[in-house]
Formats: sequence, structure tokens, C-alpha cells
Amino acid sequence: MILLFLQHEIPCFQVTDEQARRFDGMLPECADRPVRVCRSEEEFTALLPDATAVFVWTFRQEWFDLAPRLRHVCTPAAGRDYFKVVPPPCVTMHYGSFHGAIMGETALGAVLAWCHGLLPFADAMAAGKGTEWPRLVEARHGRRLGGSSVTILGYGNIGRHFARMLAPFGAKVTGVTRRPHPELADEAARLGVTLATADSLDSILADTDHLVCFLPSGAGTDNLLDVRRIALMKPSAVIYNFGRGNLIDEDALASALSSGRIAGAVLDVFKTEPLPAASPLRSAPNCWLYPHASAFAPDYLDLYFAKCAQAMRDYAGKPQ
Amino acid sequence: MILLFLQHEIPCFQVTDEQARRFDGMLPECADRPVRVCRSEEEFTALLPDATAVFVWTFRQEWFDLAPRLRHVCTPAAGRDYFKVVPPPCVTMHYGSFHGAIMGETALGAVLAWCHGLLPFADAMAAGKGTEWPRLVEARHGRRLGGSSVTILGYGNIGRHFARMLAPFGAKVTGVTRRPHPELADEAARLGVTLATADSLDSILADTDHLVCFLPSGAGTDNLLDVRRIALMKPSAVIYNFGRGNLIDEDALASALSSGRIAGAVLDVFKTEPLPAASPLRSAPNCWLYPHASAFAPDYLDLYFAKCAQAMRDYAGKPQ
Repeated sequence: MILLFLQHEIPCFQVTDEQARRFDGMLPECADRPVRVCRSEEEFTALLPDATAVFVWTFRQEWFDLAPRLRHVCTPAAGRDYFKVVPPPCVTMHYGSFHGAIMGETALGAVLAWCHGLLPFADAMAAGKGTEWPRLVEARHGRRLGGSSVTILGYGNIGRHFARMLAPFGAKVTGVTRRPHPELADEAARLGVTLATADSLDSILADTDHLVCFLPSGAGTDNLLDVRRIALMKPSAVIYNFGRGNLIDEDALASALSSGRIAGAVLDVFKTEPLPAASPLRSAPNCWLYPHASAFAPDYLDLYFAKCAQAMRDYAGKPQ
Repeated sequence: MILLFLQHEIPCFQVTDEQARRFDGMLPECADRPVRVCRSEEEFTALLPDATAVFVWTFRQEWFDLAPRLRHVCTPAAGRDYFKVVPPPCVTMHYGSFHGAIMGETALGAVLAWCHGLLPFADAMAAGKGTEWPRLVEARHGRRLGGSSVTILGYGNIGRHFARMLAPFGAKVTGVTRRPHPELADEAARLGVTLATADSLDSILADTDHLVCFLPSGAGTDNLLDVRRIALMKPSAVIYNFGRGNLIDEDALASALSSGRIAGAVLDVFKTEPLPAASPLRSAPNCWLYPHASAFAPDYLDLYFAKCAQAMRDYAGKPQ
């Protein structure tokens, strides 16, 4: 039995019966049907003894004891930091890798919105009262993405989706990974993306107009953007973070924004979420804040299930 | 002599001495140098008797009498509605056709910003006071551009730039022109754009998620989007206008927004500009207003001069 226990306050993160039915229809012959939707923890734990795979937003360590047949714990979440549990050896944890189609759009929207002042202009128009036609408001906005330099910090699935969306603009794009990834070279060349590794990050930052971050949390990314690295950037540079909040020294960033040391920031993730009311980022100028919402889309789970079903069909087709 | 009389309150619309110098350097051998920058009407009219070409934001009818050698009146403005003058037979009027590289970016930014709620989320975060982490705010935002249907109303230079930027998203794109343009078919096929003519507009509107308008003013576009056509659209549809304001019945649009008959509008141009403080659009919900700013970019005139110089070099290379 396959259990879908995907309840969530965000509507697009909560599975519908229709989505579950479609998922069932996409599964390969060998899948351990039926697919069952669980709407409560009680319902889920009652069925766990018969489950071989579960799709969940949360999983408790003690639930493994209820699930002797369980082999796969799957979550749409991308970050490996999502689960705090240690699975028994017979259970594999699976994370979502479908977010690029959504988050690439959000990231490009944020970059273009920054380039063309879409928030400041709209806010000024809405404010009225002497700014009824604010053509001179935020005159330092209005630049082109074309011709600018974009650095994608974290050139994984999401970063590469973003790079494909960037391709038509004629920007100078650099994709930064921790280690060299020769298998990415062909597509990068086709897209005009320069691949680089993190050891050249300092010199890359100095030449970056838009720094777009998709890094996961974990070893080596804590405060990677610290006061020293932020100081390397151009006064016209903008930092976007759609990865994880541990990446940025938030006090250093708020200070760099306040002093005009860099031009702006678009932040969807934070060290502490919800972002505390007292965070200095809340009052930093030219800082657009989002509530960890870059992956919201009505077809979020459809994209996830399609990718899962494909992976299961691929696996079923292989010699075991 | 070539005169550049391009003074403007918008910084990027006003020529710099450096831009003029670069333009001079790009001109073909046969060009009627020098290029002279005029900073005032007096300076400009004093030099007009020797000018063969002028680059201007404005031109008065009586100035033709001062300019016996004048053959070309050039303006960066795209709209044929820009000049009210009737030139003598020996003078050709030239309009800019370089705006797509800027306005395509702005338009795509607006569409992606709409899709991912970039304004409502940022506004809610900025408002604080009970919405410090507004993940549920504007939950109806958050859709993907990928998989949606985009109609480009006005598939000229700007519309085609926009279409090229749309190519990676997997949207269903339709380009609408007044008459068939078979010469556009090859590129459209390569981009996956369906070409259509305005006589099928009604049925296209009924299937459109994002209606992105780049039409010039003039015969046949007045109130093309009237109460009847707006009523054909889906409740989830969004109208974007970056062309001219005469296109839309603004009262009908404000009413459709207020009743939720359509989901939203992003408007950069209006029947009367500046948009009157009493316009019903100012208080319509889900209506993002811009002060005719979609083409602002620091390299606006650089793009223009590069295109002009190329046209002059091409012309010089042809048998006369």
C-alpha cells in the first residue's frame, strides 16, 4: 500500500483526492497499489503497518516501528535538512527534485522585477498623494537584464532550470558549484553559462550584478555570504536568496543595504522562519521580503507526482 | 550636420555627451558629420539651417521652415502618434524600433511577478502587524507560467522580443496581428508561437490566461478591449498593457476587476497620461499601475543609436 499523508496549511502543498487518483493511474504495474490518501495522523499511523511507501511532509522517528514493510519515505521537500529522523537500513529517504520549474520562474520574475522597478513603481503609484505619476521615483531602477552579469550560486536542479529561463536575455551567466561537474559542461555551453567552482567565488562576486542563490543548508554554506564577501560586491549588486537562510549573515546584509554598500536584496528564506519581527532585514531599505513562498504553484504536487511516477517506471524497467 | 536634441526629464531619455561621441564613432563614412548635441531649443533652432538629420523628442511644424537641408527627423519614440507634424515631401520621419529588448523584459517580469505574487507577498511582508509571515496571503497567486496560455496582442518588434523571452517556459503562446504575416512563420514555428489574426480574437480571448498587449494607438485599436471582449475572458485571466492606453475601455476594466470578473491587470499606459487621480483604475483591486515606464533603461539611447547607425551603414552599403 502507498500512503499519501500530505496535509498542509498551504493549499497547493495539500494533496487532493483527484491528484492522488491521477498519481495512481501513472504508476507502473509493479507498484504496490492502492494509493491511499490519509487526512489525519491517526488515519496514517493506522495504515502504516501495511505501507511499503509513504509520501509525507513529516515523519516521526517512532513511526518506523509501526511500519515493518516500509521501504520508501518520500517528501516533496527539496532540502535534506527537512527530516530530522534516522531511517532504518531497509528504508530509503527520497526528496523532491521538481522545484526548478516553479522556483526558476519566481527567481527570474524577481530579477526582472528588480531590473524594471516593478515594486517601487507600483508602490509609488498606489501611494498617490503627490506621486500620482511617479516617473522619477526610483530612477536608479530601470536597467536591463540583458548585458548584465548573473551568478547562480548553487547550480543544481533549480539553478539549471533558472539558467534555461535566462538563456534568451543575453546576460553573462556564471553557474557556481562546490566541485567541478564535467557532466554539466555540454548544456552549460549550449546555454552560454560559464561553470565555476566555489574556490573562485570571491573574484566572481566582484563582477556580479545579480547574485541568485539556490544553495541547500549544510556544511560549508553557513554565512558563506558574510561581511567580507558582501563587501566584495558592486554597489549596484543585488542578492537574491531562494535556497536556505543559513547562507547569509543577515546583520551584515542589513547593514550593507542600509549604508548603500549594495543596491538591494530579495529574500525568500531566513535563518529563523517565520522571520522575527525584530529582524534588521524588516527595516533595511531596498530589501524585498517573501515568506518562503518561491515554490507555491497550484500544480506543485502534480509536478512532484509526475516525476515520482517517472522514476518508479524507470526503476521498474531496469534489470533488478 | 547631425543634431541630437534629446533633452528629457527621465535621465535615460536624455542624451549624454559620451553617448553622442560613441554614436559619431559608429556612423558610416558618408554620414554628414559632425554630430552635435543641443541642450536647448535656442541652440537647436540656431543650428537647424545646417542640419541634414535631427534626433529629437519633439519637433514643431514651423521648424521645417528653418531647415532647408533637412532630410531625416528621427525619434526614439516607437509610436507613430508621437509627432503631430506633417513633414515636407523631402523629409522622412523615422521612429525607434529597439524597445523590445527592454519592454520584453518588463513585460515578462510583470507576468512572472503576477504568477508568483511578488507584489502582494512583498506588500504583506512590509505591512507586518499580523501578517509578519503571510504565507496564506494572496493564496490565489502562485501559478506557473509554464503550461498557461499567453496571448501577445500586437506581434510586432516588441511582441516578438517578448515571445523569444517566453520560449523556455513551455507556455502556450499565440501572437495576434492585424493581417497575416507569412514572413513571421519560420521564427514563430521555432519558438512554438501560434500566429493568428485579429478576426479570431474573440475565441482566443476565451482561452487566454495572460493577455499581453503591445498595440500602437490608431485606427481599429480604440477600445478593442471593451466590455464585451473583457466578458469573454476567464475569471483567472490577467490583462497587461504596455502598448497604448486607447486599447482598453478603462471603466469596463475597472468594473471587471471590482466584480472579480477577471483576476487582474498590469497597466503601464492609459487613455489620459498622467493617469487622473479620479480614475476608477486607481481603486480597482488587483490592478498594478505603472507610470508609462516599461522602456526605462540606462542603455535606452545606446540601443537606439546602435540600431540607427546599423541602419545608416546598411543604407550606405546599398546601390543608391
